[in-house]
Amino acid sequence: MAKEKQFVREIADIHSDFPQWYTDVVLKTELVDYGPVKGTMVIRPYGYAVWENIQKALDERFKATGHVNAYFPMLIPYSYLLKEAEHVEGFAPEVATVTHAGGAELTEKLVIRPTSETIICDMYAKWIQSYRDLPVLINQWANVVRWEKTTRPFLRTSEFLWQEGHTVHATQEEAEEETLKMLAVYKEFAENVLAMPVLTGRKSEKEKFAGAVATYSMEAMMLDGKSLQAGTTHFLGQNFANAFGIKFLDKDGTHKMPYQTSWGVSTRLIGALIMAHGDERGLKLPPRVAPVQVVIVPIAAAKPGVLDAAKALADTLNASGIRAKLDDRDFSPGWKFNEWEMKGVPLRLELGPRDLEGGVVTAARRDTTEKTTLPLSGIAETVKNVLDTVHNDMFAAAKRFMDSHIKPVSTLDELGAAVENGWALADWCGDRACEDKIKEQFQATSRNMPFDQSTLGKTCVCCGKKAKHKIYFGKAY
Amino acid sequence: MAKEKQFVREIADIHSDFPQWYTDVVLKTELVDYGPVKGTMVIRPYGYAVWENIQKALDERFKATGHVNAYFPMLIPYSYLLKEAEHVEGFAPEVATVTHAGGAELTEKLVIRPTSETIICDMYAKWIQSYRDLPVLINQWANVVRWEKTTRPFLRTSEFLWQEGHTVHATQEEAEEETLKMLAVYKEFAENVLAMPVLTGRKSEKEKFAGAVATYSMEAMMLDGKSLQAGTTHFLGQNFANAFGIKFLDKDGTHKMPYQTSWGVSTRLIGALIMAHGDERGLKLPPRVAPVQVVIVPIAAAKPGVLDAAKALADTLNASGIRAKLDDRDFSPGWKFNEWEMKGVPLRLELGPRDLEGGVVTAARRDTTEKTTLPLSGIAETVKNVLDTVHNDMFAAAKRFMDSHIKPVSTLDELGAAVENGWALADWCGDRACEDKIKEQFQATSRNMPFDQSTLGKTCVCCGKKAKHKIYFGKAY
Repeated sequence: MAKEKQFVREIADIHSDFPQWYTDVVLKTELVDYGPVKGTMVIRPYGYAVWENIQKALDERFKATGHVNAYFPMLIPYSYLLKEAEHVEGFAPEVATVTHAGGAELTEKLVIRPTSETIICDMYAKWIQSYRDLPVLINQWANVVRWEKTTRPFLRTSEFLWQEGHTVHATQEEAEEETLKMLAVYKEFAENVLAMPVLTGRKSEKEKFAGAVATYSMEAMMLDGKSLQAGTTHFLGQNFANAFGIKFLDKDGTHKMPYQTSWGVSTRLIGALIMAHGDERGLKLPPRVAPVQVVIVPIAAAKPGVLDAAKALADTLNASGIRAKLDDRDFSPGWKFNEWEMKGVPLRLELGPRDLEGGVVTAARRDTTEKTTLPLSGIAETVKNVLDTVHNDMFAAAKRFMDSHIKPVSTLDELGAAVENGWALADWCGDRACEDKIKEQFQATSRNMPFDQSTLGKTCVCCGKKAKHKIYFGKAY
Repeated sequence: MAKEKQFVREIADIHSDFPQWYTDVVLKTELVDYGPVKGTMVIRPYGYAVWENIQKALDERFKATGHVNAYFPMLIPYSYLLKEAEHVEGFAPEVATVTHAGGAELTEKLVIRPTSETIICDMYAKWIQSYRDLPVLINQWANVVRWEKTTRPFLRTSEFLWQEGHTVHATQEEAEEETLKMLAVYKEFAENVLAMPVLTGRKSEKEKFAGAVATYSMEAMMLDGKSLQAGTTHFLGQNFANAFGIKFLDKDGTHKMPYQTSWGVSTRLIGALIMAHGDERGLKLPPRVAPVQVVIVPIAAAKPGVLDAAKALADTLNASGIRAKLDDRDFSPGWKFNEWEMKGVPLRLELGPRDLEGGVVTAARRDTTEKTTLPLSGIAETVKNVLDTVHNDMFAAAKRFMDSHIKPVSTLDELGAAVENGWALADWCGDRACEDKIKEQFQATSRNMPFDQSTLGKTCVCCGKKAKHKIYFGKAY
């Protein structure tokens, strides 16, 4: 028996030190490692496999809604950034700059894309001539660089991977519809793939994207009650079309300026799902993105027939599209249980001589720790159903947690108490001064304004002036 | 009827001006566009869809041979580049350098990866401890930047997309086996997916990768007789392990230094398949990577039933996994034929009232321009077979072209004549001086040394000294 480590003892306690629990879990499960340059991360195979599953599920959804992929250069002339006033204000402080290339100083310095509106709009101005060229529905999978001061793996890194959709429409209505449609796509994906409930709504002026007319977000609740902005969609109006001179000849023979959107999610989602679902043993990966959905652990593997049966079981599951892994390493079953629990595999199947005799397998769910016995006959179908149940139960548990940590508040004191371990739903006058005050006093920011404003009260929670918006406040990643 | 352009008239003649034909074709078919920064390209949706099909086919093959994907940071400390002497000599002149980020000057300048051996080996030194950690079989899909002086879309661009495999093995034998295995994977992919014959072999010392012990390549022949290096695999020996301090504790209790490989193909492959298969009408896309495999053009679309039948036909084909597109735009059939021929769609199906009456569809192959009539009954199966035939015939045609443009030569005059429109197969002493002389005299470089050396002659084609290697010479992209 090789040397065994009790991995689970190495994870900080989730209840008393959530930030350290997160760091321990992402490093020790080999999802990620720190890169040599400050603020960068290496996405290791186990983490990248989660990202591949996220990409696949999203890409299918983007294509089903008529979008196509393309790739635009990463290096953007600095002058492009300057063309849209709000945009440069938001991004210039964070960019990384290339000044030399090929052994010579460049005549114009280049920035590594922090986002691609500028270079994409420059190309759109060239490509779009007529109403026949619209809508343009392009998405890009790419890396971006934003030089952040405080970084954490997945949550905020100097370089990260993402997708950015950039669409152009003949009318304002179409562009606004697209903005909300993609928000709905993100929400459906978060719920049905990540088992993660989210609240969607519009961002305040203060929190919107630099250059947008309106930004919408989906906000997910982490197990410490903080909010994580898990995806955003932007209605850009004509801001970039104006800055980059995008025009089209409409059916009526006149030249018009089109309306645009952009929308994105990133490797941040991996951080989100970790903090929405984990527990004291480590990760709990949602089955639909788990790199390993089922781990098979042979019991008394030396006994005749056990290992062969375990291999056959793995083959059966893999053949029916389940991501199953046989762990036939020379470690004790208990050690393997701990390791795979820490790594968040949704379902463990134990197969020993007694199981074989009975024509069954022992199943242990990661989310509930519940143990049952499943018949080997028809096992693939059974496992698929169990994984669906795990998904539904994980979503329901996260939803219960989120719902029970949202408090409607009508005073600043109540707001302050609510954001200690969740979100406050408040009435707000719409003024930035009140957002700033709440941020200063409670380190909480406005998250978004729900679409349902029917319960809007009369006065702002902060200043007592007339309330204009129902809005969520919370501490955030 | 909207304004129609005769696209095909806008392409330069493939026989008299091949370089201009290439440029016309890649731009006018909207595969690619020039980016704003010199030497960069925008991969447009039609071109990116080809890349997605290439990625999918390769990724499946990498995973079937036990590899997993990961992602390493793009920004590499300059000092890393310096650690392997040959490596820095090869890549330092081409790198783009980041000196400022987040509004401040960096303490150490960073390079944008031109390739990732250095940063990956730095991580491997940390991850690899024991023989149990080997082999490491990791691949990365990423963008890289190499500041080249002369650039052309897909063939040589400042930024390009690629995959880079980086593996670590306990023994030299295993690493050498991996190097040849991945070369075989590339060749099988080129033949069975891109319908592109290639010659595989070992590169000369002069042409090998900076930092490798041995480099192997697959070389494809373009329609102008030039060679395009379409993929390379490198046996790195212990060069990088030594430079980055990668060691492992072996079963025998001693510390050893492992052996490594790296291998890559890039968006260059898109340039390769264009120049291996096109003709005077434009692109000829190999069916297995064509974004549109079948275009359906309704004839007399206003006649009752035609458009409905064309739609139903597209649905039938798409439902069975064929990438079919209905072109119901308000243009004449002739105009559409020209456009889709230029865009290289392998098969066109024409459906008019007379076809409908006869329960058939008129099929036109892009590769041979052959027209036939196919029964609508069982059309999906029939079309699949036709696409396979197109693939096989395109491969056979390209193979005939390649074979007929390779000449065994025994004098420099013969070599000079052969490389005017193809490759020369020569006997070579192994000295760089002869390669340099041939380059200077004929602008031809050594391509690779075939594995079959059975026909090796006695004297070097250049200096008359004892021949050591059978080797191909050719002009190259």
